[in-house]
Amino acid sequence: MSIIVVGTVAFDSVKTPYGEAEKVLGGSANYFSMAAHFFTSVRLVGVVGEDFPDQHIRYLKSKKICTKGLTRLRGKTFYWRGEYGSDLNEAKTLVTDLNVLALFNPVLPSDYCQTEYVFLANIDPDLQSHVLGQVHRPKLVVSDTMNFWIEGKLESLKRTISQVNILLINETEARELSGESNLLRASRVIRKMGPEIVVIKRGEYGAMLDQAGKIFMVPAFPLDHVKDPTGAGDTFAGGFLGFLVKSEDPYDHATLRKAMVYGTVMAAFTVQDFSFNRLTEISWSDIENRYSQMLAMISF
Amino acid sequence: MSIIVVGTVAFDSVKTPYGEAEKVLGGSANYFSMAAHFFTSVRLVGVVGEDFPDQHIRYLKSKKICTKGLTRLRGKTFYWRGEYGSDLNEAKTLVTDLNVLALFNPVLPSDYCQTEYVFLANIDPDLQSHVLGQVHRPKLVVSDTMNFWIEGKLESLKRTISQVNILLINETEARELSGESNLLRASRVIRKMGPEIVVIKRGEYGAMLDQAGKIFMVPAFPLDHVKDPTGAGDTFAGGFLGFLVKSEDPYDHATLRKAMVYGTVMAAFTVQDFSFNRLTEISWSDIENRYSQMLAMISF
Repeated sequence: MSIIVVGTVAFDSVKTPYGEAEKVLGGSANYFSMAAHFFTSVRLVGVVGEDFPDQHIRYLKSKKICTKGLTRLRGKTFYWRGEYGSDLNEAKTLVTDLNVLALFNPVLPSDYCQTEYVFLANIDPDLQSHVLGQVHRPKLVVSDTMNFWIEGKLESLKRTISQVNILLINETEARELSGESNLLRASRVIRKMGPEIVVIKRGEYGAMLDQAGKIFMVPAFPLDHVKDPTGAGDTFAGGFLGFLVKSEDPYDHATLRKAMVYGTVMAAFTVQDFSFNRLTEISWSDIENRYSQMLAMISF
Repeated sequence: MSIIVVGTVAFDSVKTPYGEAEKVLGGSANYFSMAAHFFTSVRLVGVVGEDFPDQHIRYLKSKKICTKGLTRLRGKTFYWRGEYGSDLNEAKTLVTDLNVLALFNPVLPSDYCQTEYVFLANIDPDLQSHVLGQVHRPKLVVSDTMNFWIEGKLESLKRTISQVNILLINETEARELSGESNLLRASRVIRKMGPEIVVIKRGEYGAMLDQAGKIFMVPAFPLDHVKDPTGAGDTFAGGFLGFLVKSEDPYDHATLRKAMVYGTVMAAFTVQDFSFNRLTEISWSDIENRYSQMLAMISF
């Protein structure tokens, strides 16, 4: 089993109250892959510029992340600069340089077209649809998005959303997209747009799963040091989907709940350091340990 | 078993995006009692003015809430007017008329002085200490507070906090009191001020229990209609403490977790209507039903 992810591969400069990092590796597809490979093999679709380090591509390959779908174009890699205040739930974007991303027109390697699982990570919704259109009858399609596309490309976004089985979305973005401030009602409105399943990510407050009205709530894993929340949502998706891909039935409600917890666990590793540094240090047993701790922490 | 609560008894005028209510019954001790009586008998210590309806006092008595400690003074009952925006987690106070509360000097009825359980609901911390000083060797002392006292009477507040076993506190107030924005660290700092156990209430995001470093997280009960969050924290306390009072060992960690869930359930009833209207409509089986729903919603 494997999963295609299309999304950004980026350099990020990030400042948080706990430090800063200059031009480190990031991007939605990159973060997703760095988490999902613990569970399944990943096929990464994205674009980088000439400045992107071969060393990282070798690292991805060493983790069974297929980079055949990673195109290198003349020019610079997508660049994002952002800052977080003491409220780590909200990033302030200072610079977005699309660079080679502006020229990206993904054509899937032919063997990718039979992949059963597809993750449309945060990227232009027209690119998401374009990639999805190249996959033959996938078993499960999941997408993420952000306020930038809700505000700037709503019709394209709605077209993508109408084709997915699961939408992952931040709390504030769910409210924006649905026009409903109440979370349950927001989720219901979004389900009417297409996806049978909606996952609302609430940052340090955890996440909610809504499968046709069946609700599951999971708190975030409490940490006493959070360095950088960048990529938390994408690595949540990596753990969530990674677990679904290797499960027997990704639509089974109990399976979806466990997947939510794996997503939570992966996000909690990511935020402990800048970039995905922490994800390069952990092993499967660290993941299982934290999963058990989650269980112990919410049981009553 | 019974519990003493000292706190405010008030008239509230509340406006939320979902309606408004003019001069309805409220106050921290009132809300607490209206929730706790489902679990245990309550001894209410507070003050009202001449304008306070006898009918409500009769209602309290009919629920085994002892009102011998409820003093009536010449003048008007404490009055609060507040407003909530679409973010129901934060009230904006428009009017606070202390009225008879300014003259309140609680002297406990002599048979109250042997009560084993004490809840110091949100009220002037000097009044909290004054009441606590009249109780002989209580088994469990719990207090709540608010930003008003953190900002205006910090030394008095710290004196009270140093004498309690459990502090219930809102998330933003926990940050303010501790000077720590990270929740786990905030809780640790507060535990050093005295209480072995800290409960941080996070409004619609649920609550966290920290018993000497043992952490329990519970989400709020999701509702698709919230009318008025006023009193949610006090009725959380009512369910939480009500359950502890009737349990064998209120310091047992598993018992504390269950108490957190009962608190969550009671708060979720309160916010469904203005004042404590909803609490007058429910029965014990409604509480148990919602408790079971909580279990189903968080299990994985």
